[in-house]
Amino acid sequence: MTEFNSLKALDLGRRLLQRLDEAAEYSRPGPGVTRLYASEEHRQLLGLLSAWMRRAGLVPELDAVGNLVGRCPRALRGESALILGSHQDSVIEGGRYDGILGVALPLLALEAIREQGGTPVCPVEVVAFGDEEGVRFPSTLVGSRALAGTLDPAVLEGVDEDGVTLGEALLSLGAKPAGIPGVARDPSRVLGYVEVHIEQGPVLENEGLALGVVTALTGIERHSVRVSGRAGHAGTTPMQGRRDALVGAAAMVVEADRLLDSLDEMVGVVGQLSVRPGAVNVIPAEVDFTLELRSPDRERRLAGRCAIFDAMRSIAQERGLSISSAMTYEAEGVDCAEWLIEGLEQACQAEGQATQRLFSGAGHDGLAMHDLTDIGMLFVRCRDGLSHHPDESITVEDAGVATQVLVRFLTMKNQRLMAIQQA
Amino acid sequence: MTEFNSLKALDLGRRLLQRLDEAAEYSRPGPGVTRLYASEEHRQLLGLLSAWMRRAGLVPELDAVGNLVGRCPRALRGESALILGSHQDSVIEGGRYDGILGVALPLLALEAIREQGGTPVCPVEVVAFGDEEGVRFPSTLVGSRALAGTLDPAVLEGVDEDGVTLGEALLSLGAKPAGIPGVARDPSRVLGYVEVHIEQGPVLENEGLALGVVTALTGIERHSVRVSGRAGHAGTTPMQGRRDALVGAAAMVVEADRLLDSLDEMVGVVGQLSVRPGAVNVIPAEVDFTLELRSPDRERRLAGRCAIFDAMRSIAQERGLSISSAMTYEAEGVDCAEWLIEGLEQACQAEGQATQRLFSGAGHDGLAMHDLTDIGMLFVRCRDGLSHHPDESITVEDAGVATQVLVRFLTMKNQRLMAIQQA
Repeated sequence: MTEFNSLKALDLGRRLLQRLDEAAEYSRPGPGVTRLYASEEHRQLLGLLSAWMRRAGLVPELDAVGNLVGRCPRALRGESALILGSHQDSVIEGGRYDGILGVALPLLALEAIREQGGTPVCPVEVVAFGDEEGVRFPSTLVGSRALAGTLDPAVLEGVDEDGVTLGEALLSLGAKPAGIPGVARDPSRVLGYVEVHIEQGPVLENEGLALGVVTALTGIERHSVRVSGRAGHAGTTPMQGRRDALVGAAAMVVEADRLLDSLDEMVGVVGQLSVRPGAVNVIPAEVDFTLELRSPDRERRLAGRCAIFDAMRSIAQERGLSISSAMTYEAEGVDCAEWLIEGLEQACQAEGQATQRLFSGAGHDGLAMHDLTDIGMLFVRCRDGLSHHPDESITVEDAGVATQVLVRFLTMKNQRLMAIQQA
Repeated sequence: MTEFNSLKALDLGRRLLQRLDEAAEYSRPGPGVTRLYASEEHRQLLGLLSAWMRRAGLVPELDAVGNLVGRCPRALRGESALILGSHQDSVIEGGRYDGILGVALPLLALEAIREQGGTPVCPVEVVAFGDEEGVRFPSTLVGSRALAGTLDPAVLEGVDEDGVTLGEALLSLGAKPAGIPGVARDPSRVLGYVEVHIEQGPVLENEGLALGVVTALTGIERHSVRVSGRAGHAGTTPMQGRRDALVGAAAMVVEADRLLDSLDEMVGVVGQLSVRPGAVNVIPAEVDFTLELRSPDRERRLAGRCAIFDAMRSIAQERGLSISSAMTYEAEGVDCAEWLIEGLEQACQAEGQATQRLFSGAGHDGLAMHDLTDIGMLFVRCRDGLSHHPDESITVEDAGVATQVLVRFLTMKNQRLMAIQQA
């Protein structure tokens, strides 16, 4: 990168982080950012995002499911457009980059293109999806699923912890949920979907790279596992002959972790575990725990699942325990489109940015958008791989470089984009 | 045992179980027996116990801490007495034998002695202690500690889950807590303390014995342990380099169990365990668990504690976790008096009952009474070692034999008892 380019990037980085700081003010009180779907904070943020959209040359509109959609004039006239975006919502006490970066960055990139007297190579839209995290209501990816036309209308009946339904919350937001079917896009009018997101992991930091190009979004499966033994008085029951459900479950947790550690392109975790009866002096009779497994590769994920469940069943048998389980969630992984991967790589290269391909261990709006169109993702390095935490952080340099790369991507000749437009 | 004796025993057993069934009616609705300290059920039970006491030739009186004390005429006149008894209270949804057996059985034995025209070898009292389980208030062994003079008056300020203090609850029971200091006994006026209790473990059943004589009550220590690692996104954090607090804690649970399994005269359990943040897709940052260790032998208990904590610290170090712990409870074990052990054994022998010595892995009122006087305990076999459960059960034969053995103990010449009386 030339010195002039570096200065330009630094300036863009400063402007971007300033905007993200401003957006972070739209939060419930408390540490970090808490901005839930269709909340009062979400409603208030719409004004700020609309202002950014107008400065980027887009016309903002709140859709029926609470996404704020900014369209350029050509897109408004009905031309096929490339969709850029990410989600506006956060987890409870999350950071100021997860999601909202992918809204603010393309808007700043489009503004920078205008300032330079340029124009994107194709019609564009920027979408701030209402919900990706699925924190407030028992549904997730609601905004992107609505665009993809895969949203189950039953999610509108889901209630938050105060008993408010999603349908009611959307009305309070100013959205008209009756119009949700009309949010679904015609795939032939969409050129593709590009999302910029913090990595939320340590790979780029370990490699010393500001940016990475995503090849696939991980597949995820979740299980609830129950291990049953026999309660007993912990003082009067000899160690021999006990059927302690917690000791068995603990051996399973250790073994699952050991197996996952030995498998390639696969991760997993036991994140929840509860013990019954849960008294200091009673032998545990029953333990429930969750097991989540992720891999971008379906075959690896299924083979890993088999190995882990075989091991857990053996442990149960050895210890006189019974084990039962149910898969509570499964989302297939999706591949990013090769032409978008290459397009993003070329933009990085043109800006003198070394990069590497990596897969996303987290789900993103792209999981839903993949049902509608080709997807591509650009990851930005984050400090210590930390995310979903008030200390989530990216550098001003990385913010600037990422913006410049997106400027380049949107303005460089992309054979595929141009071919799609003409088709 | 002669056939005649067997028939007598069976009759006593039937009468005893009938009484225990009757007492079990004094319970909150729901499975099993729930009769908490200074509760309405406790208050109502006092009438039934008083009637049994009168039939046994004792004069009942509710003391200031809610113990119902029945004294024989000689004890009422101030002569030194042997105290028999156990607790009236149960755990939540407990059984109909734990505690109350040790009240009903000596009362029936004294009644049987009267019926036979006999008289106990020394003055006696039977006490139905108000609280041993410590379920309702944050204190335990309240009744027996008051007799031993070791009760901290601050326990009267302890509140139940409805915010009622123990002091208030005692007034509702009809007791006058201001008089608690006067409940403490002069050790020189007490000959000893003998408690009959179900074993609450499987040893006697495994040995095919109806009765066992207790040599010692176990020492107990409890620790709260905290294992701290680092939270992280379970999808984006590679397995390598994780500091998963639950995987570490699980390895500790397995290792503690393995060590305890290898140690003699020692048991232990991890009965409670909680995970933070406890989300299906977040690497656990912190785990708290309890560790309880028991041994009748102090040296063994301390050596076991050291071995377990050394192992847990090694696991923490290997996995990049930190560990901290605090001992939350410690009660030294106590030995039963050899002369009472032998006296109970002789009574068993005289009734033709094989028996064995064993230690108690559970705490009992004897733990507190040991501060006042010599203690002895007779264990009665219970089905499947089950206790603290609605299915807690003893046979009519065992109930009868145990009653006959206590009749014998109270009427046979006991050199030591007679020597103490004369001193």
